[in-house]
Amino acid sequence: MSDFVHERHKPPRQLDRPRELVLVCAPMRSNVNLSRIARAAGCCGLTRLICCGPGRLDRKIARDAADTLEIESHRTLEPVLKKLRDDGFRLVGLEQTSHSHDLHQYKFERRTALVIGNERTGLTDDSLALLDDVVEIPVWGLPYSYNVATATAMALYEYCRQFPAG
Amino acid sequence: MSDFVHERHKPPRQLDRPRELVLVCAPMRSNVNLSRIARAAGCCGLTRLICCGPGRLDRKIARDAADTLEIESHRTLEPVLKKLRDDGFRLVGLEQTSHSHDLHQYKFERRTALVIGNERTGLTDDSLALLDDVVEIPVWGLPYSYNVATATAMALYEYCRQFPAG
Repeated sequence: MSDFVHERHKPPRQLDRPRELVLVCAPMRSNVNLSRIARAAGCCGLTRLICCGPGRLDRKIARDAADTLEIESHRTLEPVLKKLRDDGFRLVGLEQTSHSHDLHQYKFERRTALVIGNERTGLTDDSLALLDDVVEIPVWGLPYSYNVATATAMALYEYCRQFPAG
Repeated sequence: MSDFVHERHKPPRQLDRPRELVLVCAPMRSNVNLSRIARAAGCCGLTRLICCGPGRLDRKIARDAADTLEIESHRTLEPVLKKLRDDGFRLVGLEQTSHSHDLHQYKFERRTALVIGNERTGLTDDSLALLDDVVEIPVWGLPYSYNVATATAMALYEYCRQFPAG
């Protein structure tokens, strides 16, 4: 007899306070990636997802997160970043750049906007110029780059690890 | 001018020694999930992926990982787990169960087989009975469960965070 008995879809953790992490997506190529990111964000207890460009959620993939997340759509990213900066969010991009911090060592501020770039082109130079920090996830093997939704999941995990109660 | 200059697909980190983490997948419903898991495993520097059941990799999704990973296919999971146990691997399932460890606190052994269950049904009771530990990822919101490839990415990230050099 196993010690381990299934408890799938057990009740979620309660946060002591609402998450102040906002997820911001540049215009994406794939609604599948955007929808996978939304599902992960919902599971992590985020309340705001900002989507730039024409991308739309696929509810079969995003599941309930499509309803529980406050989803804001904007045409372009830069004005969104400026508004978030004015609202006191630290703007943290997820990208391989010349001055990226290793996500393993990076200490998130609680009030953070995590900025996700396009699958192919990443974040534009204009967007990068607005960021306070950029984090990247170490890669040890081929294909040398994580899928954007996979990398976002890892960054969400690291933030939640640092702020398990919100 | 931005401090942050794109360095996409920069050369990967070097491991001091090969990873001893083996990823083991129960029969999956979706080759897309299996292929996304393979891509993430390749990026994390894993060398072995064991796939049970009829699942096959989609190379458009798995990318180079389909070639660089040593991929072993088996009909059923239990004999694979017994062999890995005999080979000295700690068998760690990723599942919500009655005695799961919180992934945030779990200390991986270097020589670990991370066992991933089916999207819908998870790991069978017979498989759970063979495991040394089960880990689960905290969930704070709807839809109350991570996509299997998303959860696997988070677990791979946590293992690599604990063993950045292999």
